[in-house]
Amino acid sequence: MKRPALSMVVLALAASFTLAAQALAQTDPLPSWNDGPAKKAIVEFVQATTTQGGPQFVPPGERIATFDQDGTLWVEQPVYSQIMYCLARVPAAVKAKPELAEVEPFKTVMSGNREAIAKLSMKDLEKILVATLTGMPTEEFRAEAKKWLDTARDPRWKRPYTELTYQPMQEVMKYMRANGYKTYIVTGGGQDFVRVYAEEIYGVPPEQVVGTAGGTKYGYDKAGKPFLLKEPRLLLNDDKAGKPEGIHLMIGRRPRAAFGNSAGDKEMLEYTKAGDGARLAMLVLHDDATREYAYGPAKGLRASKVGTFPQSLYDQAGKQGWVVISMKSDWKQIFSFDK
Amino acid sequence: MKRPALSMVVLALAASFTLAAQALAQTDPLPSWNDGPAKKAIVEFVQATTTQGGPQFVPPGERIATFDQDGTLWVEQPVYSQIMYCLARVPAAVKAKPELAEVEPFKTVMSGNREAIAKLSMKDLEKILVATLTGMPTEEFRAEAKKWLDTARDPRWKRPYTELTYQPMQEVMKYMRANGYKTYIVTGGGQDFVRVYAEEIYGVPPEQVVGTAGGTKYGYDKAGKPFLLKEPRLLLNDDKAGKPEGIHLMIGRRPRAAFGNSAGDKEMLEYTKAGDGARLAMLVLHDDATREYAYGPAKGLRASKVGTFPQSLYDQAGKQGWVVISMKSDWKQIFSFDK
Repeated sequence: MKRPALSMVVLALAASFTLAAQALAQTDPLPSWNDGPAKKAIVEFVQATTTQGGPQFVPPGERIATFDQDGTLWVEQPVYSQIMYCLARVPAAVKAKPELAEVEPFKTVMSGNREAIAKLSMKDLEKILVATLTGMPTEEFRAEAKKWLDTARDPRWKRPYTELTYQPMQEVMKYMRANGYKTYIVTGGGQDFVRVYAEEIYGVPPEQVVGTAGGTKYGYDKAGKPFLLKEPRLLLNDDKAGKPEGIHLMIGRRPRAAFGNSAGDKEMLEYTKAGDGARLAMLVLHDDATREYAYGPAKGLRASKVGTFPQSLYDQAGKQGWVVISMKSDWKQIFSFDK
Repeated sequence: MKRPALSMVVLALAASFTLAAQALAQTDPLPSWNDGPAKKAIVEFVQATTTQGGPQFVPPGERIATFDQDGTLWVEQPVYSQIMYCLARVPAAVKAKPELAEVEPFKTVMSGNREAIAKLSMKDLEKILVATLTGMPTEEFRAEAKKWLDTARDPRWKRPYTELTYQPMQEVMKYMRANGYKTYIVTGGGQDFVRVYAEEIYGVPPEQVVGTAGGTKYGYDKAGKPFLLKEPRLLLNDDKAGKPEGIHLMIGRRPRAAFGNSAGDKEMLEYTKAGDGARLAMLVLHDDATREYAYGPAKGLRASKVGTFPQSLYDQAGKQGWVVISMKSDWKQIFSFDK
């Protein structure tokens, strides 16, 4: 038998590598998505903006994608996870300042009366936020929040809140990062709170989390060691118009792609789409009461104070070329633990 | 003659590759630095924190290095470049608001009387900053600043301000980036101003520039297109204690290395060194009147309002293990255009 020449072996090897590479390239980057206009919009946007020499090519440095968190990356119903954290921290706040025990809204929270707690006003809530999110060194806050996240369980799924992230959105973030996009979280939630877990659960480092932020005050402890004290001084209310303002402050570039799910994301999506060249704007519509929640009031869904998606936003999306993601029909799987 | 076996050839090739790799590794990453304690401190810090398995290894995500700009990365004497920009923009501000022509300090600036301009107070300067840095859309500001930077010349070197960066510090930034460090500018200067040129001249993208920042206001132009208006509302005074506060706000991680040159950098260096593990803190001392400027008043150098380096800072550096860089003796070359 004649042995194949070395060059033949090399050619054969090269061919098999090429096939393997093609197979890899053809692996679906968004396996939890059903085929449809939403999935198509994401894939076409990423391909168009990363095709060197193409008319919509975007240089890597300008590939910025921003993601709202509550309701876009993880569950926000029946109430934002951070509010659960703040309520859980009230006993510690009262212990540190016993005079709070006799003052509203702390008295109500300490009573454990769920019905009364659910009726607390925004003003009451603000007092709870200030008492539980400020007044301590940044590192102490971080340690407390981490401890809670490790032990608290969502009442519906009985799982850590950090497991309630949407698998399809995790895939979008990974897919965009694999294509040179820097993924940012731009959230109305507390910047310091989200930074505690964003790297571990989303692969988004602290410096890529933009959120509602308060000031800190530099000082020294008794041993002369410097620390930053969290102050009740609002620097950025990262919601609605505050989102593009926060993006300018913290990133300094207009996003190429933005993802949201509520009226709080309108301005971020407008700002994103107002830039030149290819831009992607998407909104998650929660229309799946069985697998998650259904709320609007867009499309006749029940109204919700948390994560309101009004019909006007739905109409604006249609007019301005934003893509609405139907949780029910676009997502094959919602959570990583779904079978 | 016996031909060498294939394995011998492979071994010889491997050996030569190894030698080439070693030669490459031994290329001096800091050629503009003289050998001495400053250069040694930088190289040892980078090696210690990037040696996998070593006791001082720092995971790539945590490799954050912060650099003051004025006086640390580029010339700040006789006056900050941004002040030159603001003074140059006064005629345009007066044209837009003619009533300013009769009001101080604008009247003095418009007179062109250099002596009188040099005597303007901090309060006067603030009025000029507000008039020239706020009140316009972010993109208009960016275009104006870019135009000025392209045409303005420093009076001593007759070169664009953007050429007056220190070659040794450019090398440090590149060396650190090549070793997985994210390099940030943390400047008392205007965040929006520095972001105009930081990527081009330092390789630092906008999202890695932390500076003194004002608020913006989201709105729509007559055609309905959204824009951000620069407002005279201070969010972050990124100087002194404002530097660690700004680092927490914008980065959310404590730096591993920090570089400054004045009293305005003291708290940033303290905060950096207060973290666990290997930390590097360095201060540039301007002690070279011939090649650049000499000012302190540390070490008996002349006092300067711009970039003050007091003796107390020098003493603190000694006590806390910060390394002082002598421009005169540590830097072989100062500018890229030096011969």
